[in-house]
Amino acid sequence: MLRVGYPATLSAELLRDFPEGIELISLSDKLDHEVEIDVWIPDPYSGRAQRVWPHLRGVKLVLALMAGTEWMPAVLGPQVTICNARGAHNVSTAEWTLTAILASLKYLPLYMDIQREGKWTRRFEASTQYAAISGDPRAVYPPVMQEELTGKTVLLVGYGAIGQEIERMLAPFDVDVLRVARRARTEPEVHAVSELHGLLPQADVVVLILPATPESQGLIGAEEIALMRQGALLVNAARGPVVHTDALVEALQAGRIRAALDVTDPEPLPEGHPLWSCPNLFLTPHIGGSTPQFAPRALHIAASELRRYMKGEPLRNAVQLAAE
Amino acid sequence: MLRVGYPATLSAELLRDFPEGIELISLSDKLDHEVEIDVWIPDPYSGRAQRVWPHLRGVKLVLALMAGTEWMPAVLGPQVTICNARGAHNVSTAEWTLTAILASLKYLPLYMDIQREGKWTRRFEASTQYAAISGDPRAVYPPVMQEELTGKTVLLVGYGAIGQEIERMLAPFDVDVLRVARRARTEPEVHAVSELHGLLPQADVVVLILPATPESQGLIGAEEIALMRQGALLVNAARGPVVHTDALVEALQAGRIRAALDVTDPEPLPEGHPLWSCPNLFLTPHIGGSTPQFAPRALHIAASELRRYMKGEPLRNAVQLAAE
Repeated sequence: MLRVGYPATLSAELLRDFPEGIELISLSDKLDHEVEIDVWIPDPYSGRAQRVWPHLRGVKLVLALMAGTEWMPAVLGPQVTICNARGAHNVSTAEWTLTAILASLKYLPLYMDIQREGKWTRRFEASTQYAAISGDPRAVYPPVMQEELTGKTVLLVGYGAIGQEIERMLAPFDVDVLRVARRARTEPEVHAVSELHGLLPQADVVVLILPATPESQGLIGAEEIALMRQGALLVNAARGPVVHTDALVEALQAGRIRAALDVTDPEPLPEGHPLWSCPNLFLTPHIGGSTPQFAPRALHIAASELRRYMKGEPLRNAVQLAAE
Repeated sequence: MLRVGYPATLSAELLRDFPEGIELISLSDKLDHEVEIDVWIPDPYSGRAQRVWPHLRGVKLVLALMAGTEWMPAVLGPQVTICNARGAHNVSTAEWTLTAILASLKYLPLYMDIQREGKWTRRFEASTQYAAISGDPRAVYPPVMQEELTGKTVLLVGYGAIGQEIERMLAPFDVDVLRVARRARTEPEVHAVSELHGLLPQADVVVLILPATPESQGLIGAEEIALMRQGALLVNAARGPVVHTDALVEALQAGRIRAALDVTDPEPLPEGHPLWSCPNLFLTPHIGGSTPQFAPRALHIAASELRRYMKGEPLRNAVQLAAE
């Protein structure tokens, strides 16, 4: 009988989808003795997972609950097959991205300050912020208190499943969408990442939603930021190291661009880091994937993959196949 | 030649769409002498408009730039025809509504607090807030840091042009939409407001986007709030008096429902009012209509109406016809 280890932190209820003919073994992250299992579902928090790993023996298949499994190959070695839960985060990350774009264009950080202070008359400050960040110093009347997403140009850097989900959510806003991925393709038109510099000056909103790879590291630095429109919005829903943090801090402080980040480099962002107090920034602490629907979805994906594994069918989400 | 008075606060550039054969007269809100005009474009801020009105003579047609012209019939009397700028606010108000729903479901007020304090580790507080407001005290792992709009049920109370625009923007989220308007109709199914009590318990999000009328005043009071689901979100993008403020404050403080308001009663909300410091509330100071695109759109609508008036064609947006 196949022995499947899962984190004790997860409600066993979530495993009811799992196939017959397996033995489910709950693994505490305080584990202090060896456990023999065939299949491992690691805790979605990598710190907990890495405390458990040294006590496991016999693992052949790892079913990760996250899309991001960057730490695993180096820690687990080449002898295990690793599958991720591609798709479990798509909806929630795309929703976070839409929220971040709208929150920035609608000056929500300012309005939350106003709510906290309880001063209705401060509403006209949005107009001042708009004049400064848009670079349009003409007095605007009636005062601008929010911007519209409708009609803007959005550049999607990365066009996998989440990028496509974001495009779907952008559709009602009649935006012009530009797309960049590793390789160019058509229907719809996707540009190669080598064309990024020519596209950046055309966008009002630049969304980073590409995988963390050696090539994507530092993709957006001072040179790329300089190519962006005055007041354009940079949204990072990918991984922190895709953006050069120092260059971003400088551009935000200078009022050159705006940004919305769910990921940072370093992450977690330490207390006192200059990003925390940058103007023109909306920051959330890596919440993109964490909705009530995440765990059921991820475990549903893991259950399907396990079923394929048990039947000897090809795996759908393998990011590493065990070395022969 | 038709004399058309417009507020000096507006850039004259915005009037370049206006028909030939008229005389444009800029009106300061410091006006201290009588001015004879045929057509009046009042300042979008009613206070300024009401300072100008007593000095105007001969006005036959009023082209308001706002959709809401509640104050005008009583102040201007029955001898003038009043047209509003129906449609000028549709996109921006619908965008505000989407933003408000997403901001609430994603706990943005909490995350902006965290950003201000600069403490990444506070991210787990969202999970506590979720457990409290959802009424689900079971420990959830992994922690919930945002909710999804996808799959929820949204009740639109009001189904005019803005309500329909909101529904269009909700489409990618696969929500179930329920609709209420003054009168029932079909394709799509719209329920009569008399059925409101039966619909409230079915909704996760209740959006108020109906006109301010004597019938809509106080439509949502203690009884209606009591019918809403635990933790449901009430969004007011209509007018403050549609909601009974005291009942709302009580429900927010008790953690019964959540709310997002762009309008309040009283409005402007005075300093020290209990709404300012209510939990489970996201509040903006009536910004729904105020985007950079508002003035060009509203003046385009006014120019079209003026062209119809000059040709003797039926007016499209008359809210009051001059008494014979």
